[in-house]
Amino acid sequence: MITASIITIGDELLIGQVIDTNSAWMAQQLNKIGVWVQHRAAVGDVWDDIWNALDEEAKRSNIILITGGLGPTADDITKPLLCQYFGGKMVMDAATLEHVTYLFEHVFKRPMPLLDRNRKQAEVPDVCTVLKNERGTAPGMLFEKNGKIFISLPGVPHEMKGLMTDHVLPLLKQRFNMPHIGHRTLLTAGVGESFLAELIKDFEETLPANIKLAYLPNYGMVRLRLTANGNDKDTVENELEHQFAQLKKQVSEFLVVDEDISMSELVGRLLKNQQKTVSTAESCTGGYIAHLLTSISGSSAYFMGSVVSYDNSIKKNVLGVEEKILETVGAVSEETVIEMLAGILQVMKTDYAIAVSGIMGPDGGTEDKPVGTVWIAVGNKEYTETKKIQFRFDRQRNIELTAINALNLLRLFILKNSIG
Amino acid sequence: MITASIITIGDELLIGQVIDTNSAWMAQQLNKIGVWVQHRAAVGDVWDDIWNALDEEAKRSNIILITGGLGPTADDITKPLLCQYFGGKMVMDAATLEHVTYLFEHVFKRPMPLLDRNRKQAEVPDVCTVLKNERGTAPGMLFEKNGKIFISLPGVPHEMKGLMTDHVLPLLKQRFNMPHIGHRTLLTAGVGESFLAELIKDFEETLPANIKLAYLPNYGMVRLRLTANGNDKDTVENELEHQFAQLKKQVSEFLVVDEDISMSELVGRLLKNQQKTVSTAESCTGGYIAHLLTSISGSSAYFMGSVVSYDNSIKKNVLGVEEKILETVGAVSEETVIEMLAGILQVMKTDYAIAVSGIMGPDGGTEDKPVGTVWIAVGNKEYTETKKIQFRFDRQRNIELTAINALNLLRLFILKNSIG
Repeated sequence: MITASIITIGDELLIGQVIDTNSAWMAQQLNKIGVWVQHRAAVGDVWDDIWNALDEEAKRSNIILITGGLGPTADDITKPLLCQYFGGKMVMDAATLEHVTYLFEHVFKRPMPLLDRNRKQAEVPDVCTVLKNERGTAPGMLFEKNGKIFISLPGVPHEMKGLMTDHVLPLLKQRFNMPHIGHRTLLTAGVGESFLAELIKDFEETLPANIKLAYLPNYGMVRLRLTANGNDKDTVENELEHQFAQLKKQVSEFLVVDEDISMSELVGRLLKNQQKTVSTAESCTGGYIAHLLTSISGSSAYFMGSVVSYDNSIKKNVLGVEEKILETVGAVSEETVIEMLAGILQVMKTDYAIAVSGIMGPDGGTEDKPVGTVWIAVGNKEYTETKKIQFRFDRQRNIELTAINALNLLRLFILKNSIG
Repeated sequence: MITASIITIGDELLIGQVIDTNSAWMAQQLNKIGVWVQHRAAVGDVWDDIWNALDEEAKRSNIILITGGLGPTADDITKPLLCQYFGGKMVMDAATLEHVTYLFEHVFKRPMPLLDRNRKQAEVPDVCTVLKNERGTAPGMLFEKNGKIFISLPGVPHEMKGLMTDHVLPLLKQRFNMPHIGHRTLLTAGVGESFLAELIKDFEETLPANIKLAYLPNYGMVRLRLTANGNDKDTVENELEHQFAQLKKQVSEFLVVDEDISMSELVGRLLKNQQKTVSTAESCTGGYIAHLLTSISGSSAYFMGSVVSYDNSIKKNVLGVEEKILETVGAVSEETVIEMLAGILQVMKTDYAIAVSGIMGPDGGTEDKPVGTVWIAVGNKEYTETKKIQFRFDRQRNIELTAINALNLLRLFILKNSIG
């Protein structure tokens, strides 16, 4: 099996100032073409640490991908290090210089000339193959040593992604005879990890050796993933499909969807297929449900809009929640979300809607309604369904969980009301 | 200096299904108490890989923190491995069993008895110190070997955080005589990384050896961070403060704030100090600006609400944008955002407001208005300011950049209008 390591370079990763999203994306892409990422390492901007990481990962993997440490500023030592590591000397790359100059003169529109340090970005070790970075000034660089391939990429996510897609993935596919790696993922809801494990114990024990099962709990739901590898694509895929069908049967009671897609994508697909529209009235989630829905490209086909009624005056004046309700049972109540729902259906004129009101914390809780208390309403003009949930996490997680649960409640409502 | 390594375990990290947010948080916390995280490694659920990672990191660091691989399901092999690695045998921990039973009977409210695999979570190697996990069933475990400390924690973020705060950080503080590590971060806007570097070249060259400068570009803004370490806290902090004052002077023209806070927090603070309120009218950002504002605890003091007017009918009917404008110059235009702004100020009755409309992609672009075209308006009842920006990234990044730029535009507007 062709294996890869990913090395990310930068003090900002080690002091936790930045979350590494590059590695996950790179791993996904490598996996898709049959490369197994077996190790990831993060090191600081320290000469010896980077050097040692190169040594260690070269012992482990066929392909070593390196991101970060290529910017125009002095805290970046990666390029000279790579030059020395692979025994080259720095030379000006004419094509890169032309590209950098072009970016500065025609794309960046900065009111200043090309600086020496920008020009320096076009310098590369003479022992590397330059990979053109269409989206930025720092080029990708490919090195070979003792049969291992090393590829250095800038850490800026969209530049790294461009280089991976344009150069790295096609190059690797050409170079190696890849085994096939296949995945199947399904999403369950309403059941815990241990109960699921009990349910599919027998299935799991009879899985062939080249197929692995993983449990991925997230947002109170559990994803199950089967991963298979082998040399013949058709054999692997057939076997995987067969086992996946078994798995689906076993968990059918809790199955949400047999694909690795997000809840907002799933809800969007349902709405699109039925040519229905949706809107949201959000208090405690502050627009986050709308954000999840509109993160999906093409969502304008079914998402009309939202009213974020954070303040009670907005609940009253824009959504028409009765003042008496807010005064007696309060904003976090079944009565309020029912009125919010009716209000948003009227304002936005959509087929379906979601309304939520709750206390996300850390402040604002009372004895009756502690932090984490949430009321959700979903429905259409005819029917309304409500649900009260008590979360017990921090603000950010409470917001996320409320949004996912509200979307799932709407999904179930749509399914029920379109069947019967 | 006391050094640490973080090992994260789980195939889901290596195939990129999950983004590792634990490591960043752990690194931040360790850094605060003076522990320098010098290496992070991610490995799959593979016996040899985990074993080797323990060996490698033990050579490097004083403290080895391990997360993940402790769930109740069969893909988790970490606990038996740790037991063998440290030469112990598995025993039932009475206190943990009591805690697990309590969680099942009183907290989780599951309609099923404690399963064998749940009971198994209370088994631990007899050579470890058990750290109680108040938020879940898998306990933390502390081991020692050749003077190195190994701590295994569950991978569920809020459980890991609880264990770090309750046990790990206090334990480490007690155990080691920590050096002091200090950070100062400032945020600049409107200037590129290379120009900044040129501007502060002399300053950077005269920095003492124990103070490092880092450039952290993000969302079209650049953060500058000074990091100092030394044995005496007062000396380190005084030196750091002195250098930070110099740095601020040098970049004063582009300085946004001399703290490591987010743009939404900064805007929130401005509004709170002035006892002013804000609302947003969002088209292309789909509620994301409202989400950023309401992510800040206490935002109900200044944030009233939003109208997400994704569909043109909402722009017209709720915000009062004239149909003629939408028909002639279109929804992505200066005229439209000006009317959206006026509309939201009237609907929400706030002191300030933000309105945005744009094309986030990948579809919907035209020759006149390519993907990434955004119009932003900010203002109050008296004044309105508008800005057109052309982004050239993917949907997610275009949304984020639009939100940050809109918040920054509002920040500048508030500053200007409260001085003069």
